[in-house]
Amino acid sequence: MENLLIIKIGGNVIDQPEALAIFLDDYAQIEGKKILIHGGGKIATDISRALGIEAQMIDGRRITNAETLKVVTMVYAGLINKTIVSRLQASGCNAIGLTGADANVIAAKKRVDKNIDYGFVGDIEQVNVAPIVQFLNAGLAPIFAPLTHDGKGAMLNTNADTIAAALASALCKHYETRLIYCFDKKGVLASTDDESVIPQLNLTQYYDLKAQGIVTKGMLPKLDNAFATLQAGVRAVTLCHAAQIQRAVKGDLTVGTTLLLR
Amino acid sequence: MENLLIIKIGGNVIDQPEALAIFLDDYAQIEGKKILIHGGGKIATDISRALGIEAQMIDGRRITNAETLKVVTMVYAGLINKTIVSRLQASGCNAIGLTGADANVIAAKKRVDKNIDYGFVGDIEQVNVAPIVQFLNAGLAPIFAPLTHDGKGAMLNTNADTIAAALASALCKHYETRLIYCFDKKGVLASTDDESVIPQLNLTQYYDLKAQGIVTKGMLPKLDNAFATLQAGVRAVTLCHAAQIQRAVKGDLTVGTTLLLR
Repeated sequence: MENLLIIKIGGNVIDQPEALAIFLDDYAQIEGKKILIHGGGKIATDISRALGIEAQMIDGRRITNAETLKVVTMVYAGLINKTIVSRLQASGCNAIGLTGADANVIAAKKRVDKNIDYGFVGDIEQVNVAPIVQFLNAGLAPIFAPLTHDGKGAMLNTNADTIAAALASALCKHYETRLIYCFDKKGVLASTDDESVIPQLNLTQYYDLKAQGIVTKGMLPKLDNAFATLQAGVRAVTLCHAAQIQRAVKGDLTVGTTLLLR
Repeated sequence: MENLLIIKIGGNVIDQPEALAIFLDDYAQIEGKKILIHGGGKIATDISRALGIEAQMIDGRRITNAETLKVVTMVYAGLINKTIVSRLQASGCNAIGLTGADANVIAAKKRVDKNIDYGFVGDIEQVNVAPIVQFLNAGLAPIFAPLTHDGKGAMLNTNADTIAAALASALCKHYETRLIYCFDKKGVLASTDDESVIPQLNLTQYYDLKAQGIVTKGMLPKLDNAFATLQAGVRAVTLCHAAQIQRAVKGDLTVGTTLLLR
């Protein structure tokens, strides 16, 4: 099987124009088939505020009412996605921006939760692999905004980590797939020290760290998602700093945290 | 050659949710290869205003400073484009949203004018037909937002009528192409009476109407564009009301204004 690289770039890099420009230059130079998924929550929050819409969060998830859905659709699919696509085009990377609605690549269902009304938040039901494979075969580099759709006419807000994991789990049947989460830390940390990167982490060790309260908060869904992709057949998952992307892509195991099933 | 239908839907329909929903239902039912181009200026103006950015217009063209470019990128490529794409998906039309930057389908150049600084406004340099043909052959219905890019990392604001004309002129080498401009009038009018539709108009007649001041303002660039596509090889151009789209598609010559070279 051919190789495929799936990279998630976190919101904190998106927020910093210089860091984003460096990351995109690095990304453009990666050879072979590749997919990028971006976040962008902070810019959406800023624009919501400027429009007088206060962002509401529960467990790190944005509560997406109709007004907030408009803002995230504008910011994720419009501003951020096209900023990335146009910059990659300038660096010779033939990028194409997508949401789950475009070519129906990711179908989702509006989340139903008896305790919390998340609003227009989508849980992924199906990744339609065929159009994605066609885009990759045509030499295109798909850039995913963190939005899906319900097939009934509504866009849905979907966590970018979850989209990255769902794409990796679906596409690993067709490609030797590696998943890299780029964020503002150098990997999974053993303490509050930014340099305390755990180089390798298996599922048992992860459960231990979770039980000890060393890995917490936003890291938990990210790692739960990541381990699930390994179980689905993804070859390797790495978590690293956005500035380390080139080394991580080259397979430098001293970079970031590499996840293993056992 | 196979048939291709290129339809431009004007901003005034985009602004009215009910009219847009009816138009999109009609559009979804059109069989065969098709491309939709949408405007959306009024919503962009409203959101600019809500963000405290005053829209500036010269000769019907928005002056696009850096802040306005962000707004139109959000509104055109995000909000409006994805609203259309998700609604078409719900009606069984496999839509894919595009700007000129995506897959580099439309390359443009920032406008240079010795009298007016238009800002981030793009004049089209090249339509890259190959990816568009691939999308059409894959059964996708491309939905174009009125944005292009300069290949140097900047998105550019480009008039939707102009994009429709450029796509038609480029694609008519590959398809028997019909171009339909849908707007809020029933066609080119001979007077201020909304029912005074001119059923057929050739280039000589158009020059006469222009000289007499009967056809003015926003209609002039639309018609100049439209006649140029006929000269490039487009089979037919029709201007009609959005509510008449199904009849226009079926070739009902009592609908709208049909343009002829002679």
